[in-house]
Amino acid sequence: MSRHSTLLAAFTAIVLALAPGFDARAEADPLPSWNDGEAKRQIVEFVASVTRSGSSTFVTPADRVAVFDNDGTLWSEHPTYFQLLFALDRMKSMAEADPALASEQPYKAVLEGDQATLAAMDPHDLLPALVKSHAGMTDREFAAQVSQWLDRSRHPKTGRPYTEMVYQPMLELLDYLRANDFRVWIVSGGGVDFVREFAFEVYGVPPEQVVGSSVEKRFEMTPDGPIFHRLPEIHSLDDKEVKPVNIKLHIGKRPILAFGNSDGDVAMLQFTESKNDPWLSLLLHHDDDGRDYSKTAGTEMALELANERNWVIVYVSKDFSVVYPTTR
Amino acid sequence: MSRHSTLLAAFTAIVLALAPGFDARAEADPLPSWNDGEAKRQIVEFVASVTRSGSSTFVTPADRVAVFDNDGTLWSEHPTYFQLLFALDRMKSMAEADPALASEQPYKAVLEGDQATLAAMDPHDLLPALVKSHAGMTDREFAAQVSQWLDRSRHPKTGRPYTEMVYQPMLELLDYLRANDFRVWIVSGGGVDFVREFAFEVYGVPPEQVVGSSVEKRFEMTPDGPIFHRLPEIHSLDDKEVKPVNIKLHIGKRPILAFGNSDGDVAMLQFTESKNDPWLSLLLHHDDDGRDYSKTAGTEMALELANERNWVIVYVSKDFSVVYPTTR
Repeated sequence: MSRHSTLLAAFTAIVLALAPGFDARAEADPLPSWNDGEAKRQIVEFVASVTRSGSSTFVTPADRVAVFDNDGTLWSEHPTYFQLLFALDRMKSMAEADPALASEQPYKAVLEGDQATLAAMDPHDLLPALVKSHAGMTDREFAAQVSQWLDRSRHPKTGRPYTEMVYQPMLELLDYLRANDFRVWIVSGGGVDFVREFAFEVYGVPPEQVVGSSVEKRFEMTPDGPIFHRLPEIHSLDDKEVKPVNIKLHIGKRPILAFGNSDGDVAMLQFTESKNDPWLSLLLHHDDDGRDYSKTAGTEMALELANERNWVIVYVSKDFSVVYPTTR
Repeated sequence: MSRHSTLLAAFTAIVLALAPGFDARAEADPLPSWNDGEAKRQIVEFVASVTRSGSSTFVTPADRVAVFDNDGTLWSEHPTYFQLLFALDRMKSMAEADPALASEQPYKAVLEGDQATLAAMDPHDLLPALVKSHAGMTDREFAAQVSQWLDRSRHPKTGRPYTEMVYQPMLELLDYLRANDFRVWIVSGGGVDFVREFAFEVYGVPPEQVVGSSVEKRFEMTPDGPIFHRLPEIHSLDDKEVKPVNIKLHIGKRPILAFGNSDGDVAMLQFTESKNDPWLSLLLHHDDDGRDYSKTAGTEMALELANERNWVIVYVSKDFSVVYPTTR
């Protein structure tokens, strides 16, 4: 910083400090889309307890690590995972171009618009076709496809871009945590390269704080620069017990706050628990009959454990006053 | 920050800004263990160019990513990789406890102190035994063994703890980069859990900025808390073309500065190159006849490419005025 700007910053700080209403930020509600209730109270109390300098529950900023699931936690996942919709659109193009594929599932159902067959398929059974749908591409081509798809596609029920199907109360929570010197990581079952295409713009989460599923890649140095080829093999499927393993690999420490919504997040929420140190595990429960466009299947174990293990259950019905951002 | 401490900080800033000699930091040499010469000049010029606000070469702090190899770049690697010495010590204990192992290589050579046989082995051929030597342990047990070994072991020639076999000029460079809002990552062929045991204390690099080789792990939640079991399979061998792949996976962006010393770093140094944006790839050349306790074998391709591709070659003989820290 130059001498001039240092002086300017110092004078500004003094003016702000002396001005009435300087503490306005502390008084304003940092979570306006959350109804007052047990969940909000526990979040605010937890953040206060770990940031209160000198207290026994104080956590140094370097250790204020918060991890968030993405599908069903930060954004919606109905009618199915949005990345799967992206892959299905890609499979449709592939099947249109290659008649040999057109008679195979899931391509046949995709081509015929056979929603019933697709809906009956377990997303995990679609995984091989999903991985194959973008194999052989370079990282750059894949990123361009994701970006284009996110720009052009609209959710079948709401007509919103998918990046506007994010939960407003969660956006506020991410900001609130960062304002309190937390670092926020996304730990998603979705593909790391898919999520990174919008994570910074939509959530304010930079690429190095996104952990997700990944495919094997091959690096090649060409006269035009480096190329990463996507190979048709999974490197890591970031779900269930693999989530804490990847948190250790990428972050190297226990998070003090974790937020998920389904059985796939149970291991991550357990890993966050501690006998002696502060921790907060939260589970988003989609009990709002469709307003939030997320599923409730595959969350039974998580709900049961939440009650047993003192996780905070966040009910969309009573804790969210607003679901989606009104303007972006 | 409280109102009181904000005021105090602001007044302190003013006093400092008005005091004569405020710019002392800018005038002091940030790299005192580097001799004045081409390498130091290029480093200082590069840092100035990417931090000069408003210039065409300015790089925003979020993109000031620097990656460093560890073995032979930040610390020594002679008589062999220090982590291999650690594993050999472990193998010796295993062979002493299990006579069936005592007749197998490399255990036999380890037990007999047969340095000639061990020296003749390619470290990569030792890999299966190395991985096996710590399989079945938990993460916590492994960390405790590394920590104990680092505390108690001494380098066979210098008698120093291994964590004092780090290059003083490189420690200064890490500090210099951080003072200029770079984030420094280690991208090591060594095990990520091994390197993390000392990276923060010795290099100031936090766990989430260490990328390395890794083994497969299994997460288990027990009544006493979470356990990570180390499995006898490699998850990622972070060497050669895998280094840029792991940089993409963990950091998600091209580094603007990379520093390595061997053929294993070539791909990472290439990935850092850019046609249109600032970049600096550096190669440490151990031409000092032993003073620096690192090898020169396995660096031929790197040296050749450095000359071809405008990487900066740092010569220990003429660029380092001091090799190791005198006090720590």
